[in-house]
Amino acid sequence: MEKIYIIGVGLIGGSLAKDLRGQYPEAYIFGIDTTPAHITEAIATGLIDDEGHLDAISEADLVVLSIPVDIAVEVLPTVLDQVGDHTLVIDMGSTKAAICKSVATHEKRRNFLACHPIAGTEFSGPSAAIEGLYKSKTNIICEVEKTSFKLQEKALELFRSIGMRIRYMDPISHDKHIAYVSHLSHISSFMLGKTIIDKEKNERDIFDMAGSGFASTVRLAKSNPTTWTSIFKENKENILETLEEYIANLEHFRELMRQEDFIGVHQEMKNTNHIKEILKGIE
Amino acid sequence: MEKIYIIGVGLIGGSLAKDLRGQYPEAYIFGIDTTPAHITEAIATGLIDDEGHLDAISEADLVVLSIPVDIAVEVLPTVLDQVGDHTLVIDMGSTKAAICKSVATHEKRRNFLACHPIAGTEFSGPSAAIEGLYKSKTNIICEVEKTSFKLQEKALELFRSIGMRIRYMDPISHDKHIAYVSHLSHISSFMLGKTIIDKEKNERDIFDMAGSGFASTVRLAKSNPTTWTSIFKENKENILETLEEYIANLEHFRELMRQEDFIGVHQEMKNTNHIKEILKGIE
Repeated sequence: MEKIYIIGVGLIGGSLAKDLRGQYPEAYIFGIDTTPAHITEAIATGLIDDEGHLDAISEADLVVLSIPVDIAVEVLPTVLDQVGDHTLVIDMGSTKAAICKSVATHEKRRNFLACHPIAGTEFSGPSAAIEGLYKSKTNIICEVEKTSFKLQEKALELFRSIGMRIRYMDPISHDKHIAYVSHLSHISSFMLGKTIIDKEKNERDIFDMAGSGFASTVRLAKSNPTTWTSIFKENKENILETLEEYIANLEHFRELMRQEDFIGVHQEMKNTNHIKEILKGIE
Repeated sequence: MEKIYIIGVGLIGGSLAKDLRGQYPEAYIFGIDTTPAHITEAIATGLIDDEGHLDAISEADLVVLSIPVDIAVEVLPTVLDQVGDHTLVIDMGSTKAAICKSVATHEKRRNFLACHPIAGTEFSGPSAAIEGLYKSKTNIICEVEKTSFKLQEKALELFRSIGMRIRYMDPISHDKHIAYVSHLSHISSFMLGKTIIDKEKNERDIFDMAGSGFASTVRLAKSNPTTWTSIFKENKENILETLEEYIANLEHFRELMRQEDFIGVHQEMKNTNHIKEILKGIE
């Protein structure tokens, strides 16, 4: 691994750069980013060695796409147009159907591996990059059979070296299920934050009353709006379905409360309590 | 402080017992609980010294009510009926209007101090008790002027000794604001957990896709249903108001998504992002 290009030097790309630096000390890491300050900061902090340019990408051993998913869909075909035979291109996006479709008939399709590492924090930008972010995390790989065997091997070795475990899934199923276990949580959290800020905007002292439970529930409302708008755009249909169900469940709970059916209220919570078992191993 | 009675030896009462043990090593701690196993466990683990009985409570220096709020409203007048002149009675409940009202005209009203320590975890029972749970946490005291000056002093000394900071508030305002910053979070979390469990019940592998963001958002869905049913019952009107607003915000977000107004979606998230500043100091 001699030349690595990271397109999008933020939390996701920057954290991967840190881990790659440890595993491939001989590699020269180029960064590409539409925000010039990200490049300056990433060079200054040693995340990357230099700014890179798309037209030089043919010589790359590895190209990592870690940009908002709606932009990645536009950029990936252009990247594939220019890569060399030995170049592995991976993406790190939270939706997979659109990106797989964008290069389905591309002549260099076999250079690309579609990935979704389930890792991140609510922070963003190069300063949010963390060494070891991917350790013991799941990486969901889609359409593995469409990537050349040699480049699959190269990618798996890379993921193994940074401590990730691998799951395989088709992109349609990925987008459907991830809407439930990730995308909906973000909407729930953002709207909870909004509800409280709207109500309490003139009463800042009120937040003295908030405890760690509140902080935990609205944590995701700190997330980057650009990243998440692109995800919501790309996975609109699945997310609308989960949102319908969530609102229906809240309305049902409201009805139980209105009718003072507290046996029903208790039952709703008791039925959901076994989330304890499900969460074991995630936290 | 010679004799302490803890009524309700769970997470809240048990954690306080641990801290009191450290601060008042000479005190003998009695526990009262309707679940016999809680008493056995609390004695075995040294949380309490012995089982206590309500009819012996006149000799207590301190009585702590840490039981579900709808039960506390029933029990408090009976406790006050029996206390001695020097007995301080505090409650630890998450709603304050009903309990204050329940003893408003009680002849021993001045023995009681209404408290809400903003502390806890999603676990319950004596085994969930944690030493230092209350350290650096806020304790909201309601109607302080209705407690005798001497017993106020005793209570403040106690709270200071276990590291709590004090805020004063009237019980009506307390219940209104706490619905936003605590009670609504629990409903949001429980219903999020329900939505996902309902959908994914036959696909356990799907939870492999869940990350720490999901875990954080549904953490409160592990909470004790009995504790929370009692809170929802006591604070019904305020909670219904917050729930209305939360559902309206989610519906508005759904409409923006349906209309593919992603500038609007972005704006909604951007406006809520300053929750970052609000959360500083809570987490």
